Amino acid sequence: QCSLHRIVDEKIKAALNKLEYKPFAPTPKLSCVSVTTPGKLASCPEGTAVTGCACGFACGSWDVQGESTCHCQCSVVDWTTARCCHVS
Amino acid sequence: QCSLHRIVDEKIKAALNKLEYKPFAPTPKLSCVSVTTPGKLASCPEGTAVTGCACGFACGSWDVQGESTCHCQCSVVDWTTARCCHVS
Amino acid sequence: QCSLHRIVDEKIKAALNKLEYKPFAPTPKLSCVSVTTPGKLASCPEGTAVTGCACGFACGSWDVQGESTCHCQCSVVDWTTARCCHVS
Repeated sequence: QCSLHRIVDEKIKAALNKLEYKPFAPTPKLSCVSVTTPGKLASCPEGTAVTGCACGFACGSWDVQGESTCHCQCSVVDWTTARCCHVS
Repeated sequence: QCSLHRIVDEKIKAALNKLEYKPFAPTPKLSCVSVTTPGKLASCPEGTAVTGCACGFACGSWDVQGESTCHCQCSVVDWTTARCCHVS
Repeated sequence: QCSLHRIVDEKIKAALNKLEYKPFAPTPKLSCVSVTTPGKLASCPEGTAVTGCACGFACGSWDVQGESTCHCQCSVVDWTTARCCHVS
C-alpha cells in the first residue's frame, strides 16, 4: 500500500507540473498608454481599448470611431490623444 | 506495477478533463463601449465601469456620480458620453 | 483493484482541493475610482492605471505624466480629476 501512495502522489504532482499550471496565477494587470497625434484623430494599437480621449485647444468633446479611434469634434483642434488600455 | 501506473495516469487525465480546466486559459480582454445621451448625464450599463467621459460644447469638466454615471459640469452641455469598459 | 481506484480517486481529489484551485474562477472585474485634487495634477494610487482625466474650467486638454498622473494643460485650471482603474 505504501508504495502505491507514493506512486500516486508523484504522478499527480508530475501531472500538475506538466500542465505548467500555476495554482496562484497572478491577478490580471491593467496597463495603459497614451497615443498622441497631430490633428483630430488618434488610434489605439491592436489589442488595446480606448478608455478616454483628450484634445488640443481645451476641447472636451470627443467620440470613439470604429472602436479604436479617438475623434475630437471641436472645429479647431491641433492634437488628439487616445488613452489605450489592455489587461495582461 | 505497470497496470498501476496506467490506472493512475488515466484517472489523473480524466480528473483534469472533468474539471473543464483549460491550462492555457485565454488572457482576459478589455472591451469598451460609449453610451451617449442628451443632456448632462450618461450612465454605463451594469457590469461595466466608467473609464472616462466626454461632453458637448467642448466641455472637459466632468465627474462620475454613483460609480456609473458621467456628469458634465459646464453650464451649457447638449450631450454627455460615458466610456464604459469591462473585462471578459 | 477496487481499493486502488478508491485510493487514487481520493488522492486526486485531495490534490486539487489543496491547490485551492477553483475550476470556475470568477471573471476578473474592472473597478474604477476618481481622484480629484486642486490645481493641475492628480495622481492615481499604486496598482491602478489612469484611464482618463477631467479638468476644471471646461478644459479638455490633458496628458498623463509618469504613467499615473493626470496633468491639465489649460492656463487656468482649478481642479484635476484622474480616473483610476484596476482589475481584481
